[in-house]
Amino acid sequence: MNQDTICAIATAPGGALGVIRVSGPNAIAVLSHIFIPASRKVRITTCPSHTLLYGHIHDGDKLIDEVVVSLYRAPHSYTGEESVEISCHGSSYILQQAMQLLIRNDCRLAHPGEYTQRAFLNGKMDLSQAEAVADLIASTSEATHRLSMNQMRGGFSRELAGLRDRLLHFTSLVELELDFSDHEDVEFADRSELHHLADEIEAIISRLVRSFSVGNAIKNGVPVAIVGETNSGKSTLLNVLLNEEKAIVSDIHGTTRDVIEDTVNIGGITFRFIDTAGIRDTTDTIESLGIKRTFQKLAQAEIVLWVIDAREADEQYHKLAPRLRSLTKDKRLILIFNKSDLLASYESSSLMVAALSGIETFSTISISAKYSKRVDELQQLLVQAASLPSVTPNDVIVTNVRHYEALSQALEAIQRVQQGLTDNLSGDFLSQDIRECIYHLSDIVGEVTTDMVLHNIFKNFCIGK
Amino acid sequence: MNQDTICAIATAPGGALGVIRVSGPNAIAVLSHIFIPASRKVRITTCPSHTLLYGHIHDGDKLIDEVVVSLYRAPHSYTGEESVEISCHGSSYILQQAMQLLIRNDCRLAHPGEYTQRAFLNGKMDLSQAEAVADLIASTSEATHRLSMNQMRGGFSRELAGLRDRLLHFTSLVELELDFSDHEDVEFADRSELHHLADEIEAIISRLVRSFSVGNAIKNGVPVAIVGETNSGKSTLLNVLLNEEKAIVSDIHGTTRDVIEDTVNIGGITFRFIDTAGIRDTTDTIESLGIKRTFQKLAQAEIVLWVIDAREADEQYHKLAPRLRSLTKDKRLILIFNKSDLLASYESSSLMVAALSGIETFSTISISAKYSKRVDELQQLLVQAASLPSVTPNDVIVTNVRHYEALSQALEAIQRVQQGLTDNLSGDFLSQDIRECIYHLSDIVGEVTTDMVLHNIFKNFCIGK
Repeated sequence: MNQDTICAIATAPGGALGVIRVSGPNAIAVLSHIFIPASRKVRITTCPSHTLLYGHIHDGDKLIDEVVVSLYRAPHSYTGEESVEISCHGSSYILQQAMQLLIRNDCRLAHPGEYTQRAFLNGKMDLSQAEAVADLIASTSEATHRLSMNQMRGGFSRELAGLRDRLLHFTSLVELELDFSDHEDVEFADRSELHHLADEIEAIISRLVRSFSVGNAIKNGVPVAIVGETNSGKSTLLNVLLNEEKAIVSDIHGTTRDVIEDTVNIGGITFRFIDTAGIRDTTDTIESLGIKRTFQKLAQAEIVLWVIDAREADEQYHKLAPRLRSLTKDKRLILIFNKSDLLASYESSSLMVAALSGIETFSTISISAKYSKRVDELQQLLVQAASLPSVTPNDVIVTNVRHYEALSQALEAIQRVQQGLTDNLSGDFLSQDIRECIYHLSDIVGEVTTDMVLHNIFKNFCIGK
Repeated sequence: MNQDTICAIATAPGGALGVIRVSGPNAIAVLSHIFIPASRKVRITTCPSHTLLYGHIHDGDKLIDEVVVSLYRAPHSYTGEESVEISCHGSSYILQQAMQLLIRNDCRLAHPGEYTQRAFLNGKMDLSQAEAVADLIASTSEATHRLSMNQMRGGFSRELAGLRDRLLHFTSLVELELDFSDHEDVEFADRSELHHLADEIEAIISRLVRSFSVGNAIKNGVPVAIVGETNSGKSTLLNVLLNEEKAIVSDIHGTTRDVIEDTVNIGGITFRFIDTAGIRDTTDTIESLGIKRTFQKLAQAEIVLWVIDAREADEQYHKLAPRLRSLTKDKRLILIFNKSDLLASYESSSLMVAALSGIETFSTISISAKYSKRVDELQQLLVQAASLPSVTPNDVIVTNVRHYEALSQALEAIQRVQQGLTDNLSGDFLSQDIRECIYHLSDIVGEVTTDMVLHNIFKNFCIGK
């Protein structure tokens, strides 16, 4: 499949060292044209795998660099192909010269993720493991690192393999039943056993599907939308929560034009805050892009912080409540009465009571964002609202949207099997849904994946990986 | 000397790969605590030099990364010490975790350039070669790459070694003379032979000292100052020469407040342009910082472009000429009559004639910077004014200020020897100056260099080199 030899700079520009990766059938032959080992005894083309060679990269008479070369023989390399890594001095000029030299020697510039794609195509890892490589490189916290490392090491693949074993056992039982369908007295696979097995498989897939909300929250943060009337203090609150001056704060209505996102770690949980353009009078500014986006962002949020100027609580509440009622369904809504410093006795006011009568809230709190009053209590409320289950190192958690979608389809298929068993459908129909379930699981590890899907997966990798 | 083991991330953040370097007596012992090879047969502590190992970095139970380790045994490493390079996935989180793990295992974070400093201290390279490593990493053109590569490969050191051989031969002759100074009839080293030798050595050192202006021009560009009255079109000219909108161009007098520097390659020569705050009426704005800097920059320039608004040439010329006369001494001055497009017949005007009568100029040209008229001719003039000798790949060129200073002192010493021979000074005095000459040459390769000088040299390296 891979007849060409690819090359790429695998390190970021600007360090002390720069590494160029070369992989493909001619990797070592090309090296022998551009590299002279310091030791005269070395013959590159017959070097064993996992050899380190010191010497010089040269372009004819022109010396390009003193380098160390790591040489790997197929299949004992990352890609499974003949591979070479050239460790140069970290000069952009040198790296570019060496790359041009490789390309003149019939190497091709690698596409993003092409090394990992080749590793997958050569059977060095399955697709979910390959995808984990990109996640691992992007990991920024212990939790994301652990999840991607577990996936790269095959934890997820093992879980899927276990599931497939169970599904194959299931089909074999169903097919046995089919073989003997003429003999009504034979009952190899009694329906209650099949039902039990389907329930077990459904429970596992269902758990994996559910784990995605946790996985996604760990990977991208728990999405929190901050909504409210303009000038209710949303930007000030965001700044206090982020401990920095990210949003522009002013007293002019509608200052926040763009949706600003930022993450912050509170009590070990990453929250992804969405500050939104103020929701103003519906009649004249509903058309503005920022306000449209507010409602789009709201749809993605798991937690909604609704900031109300405590002085105008009644008015603001009644204005927004009708629109928020449907949008905050299935979300945890925290009602925040801000600017409490400007109210003498806000808690005894009748406003909160009036407010609480309308929408189902997770909690209600009075704060002063400006003076950071009771913001710590709000943070505790956030942690409670996030309510992430604790994850142990060996738990398999789905973090990838593609996996989530495949598992969701597998779940639908197995649920159709369950229904079919209840409805006493024949083995043919059951078997078709089981096969579909297996198909979606195989899609995750890349056994039935099309070239286009592969392209989409690897295009998001960095070049050199 | 180096009892501690150092570690550093040697690659820039953000690539597909990240490399951590560990060097020192415990490098391999530390590795054996944090790294488990995939192959159970491998015993790290007894591995031979130049081994590549695949396996896992772990912090107790916690897996940090799948890595490839390059293992080097002293003295066959870059530093000459036991060394390890760990090639990780390029995640900042992973690299930081691995670094923390190394530091907990008694490694110390390396200082900038400490690997190269150790290579120098362990005799793997001399100081001029070590300095060339930093230049090599910073090299951005074929010329700078060739100079630093030549220096790193020891070309400069060989030139110095040749010089020292000659100086040692010189001292031996002088000392022979001293030994037989009682016997007036013995003349082992006749004065004319000594004179001849001193002249030869002086010629070589002198050539090296002179090469610095070329080396510096190659490394940093030929410094060109653009001066002239405000609104004479200096910024427009700079933009045209740089082919980009670097300086702010406006019609308001004194727009250019700060000194802007940029380099451009014209005819294979790098020019470093200095745009300067306009020189305005001496009485009221001479105090402003920008104008002070104009004159400071002028002192560094080798070429001065004096831009005059052709419409006011007479006036502008007579205003600046007195001040520029002394400042442009020893510089190549190009007088530019700009805005020629606004003058019907600028060439027939008497202005240029008047102008030419005052200051010694390299050349005079009328252009229109705004309409890029005759700018190509100006570029040719610049190349002529730069007058860099052509450099062949094997020429030894001094590019380093420290080397230039040491060579200048060596030159002074050998010139004192020449003078002493002319004045018929005794061998004792000659010998003292020859020793001083040798001392300064030894300083370049680091044989007599103090810790403080070493510190100053290596602090400008990047960490990990």
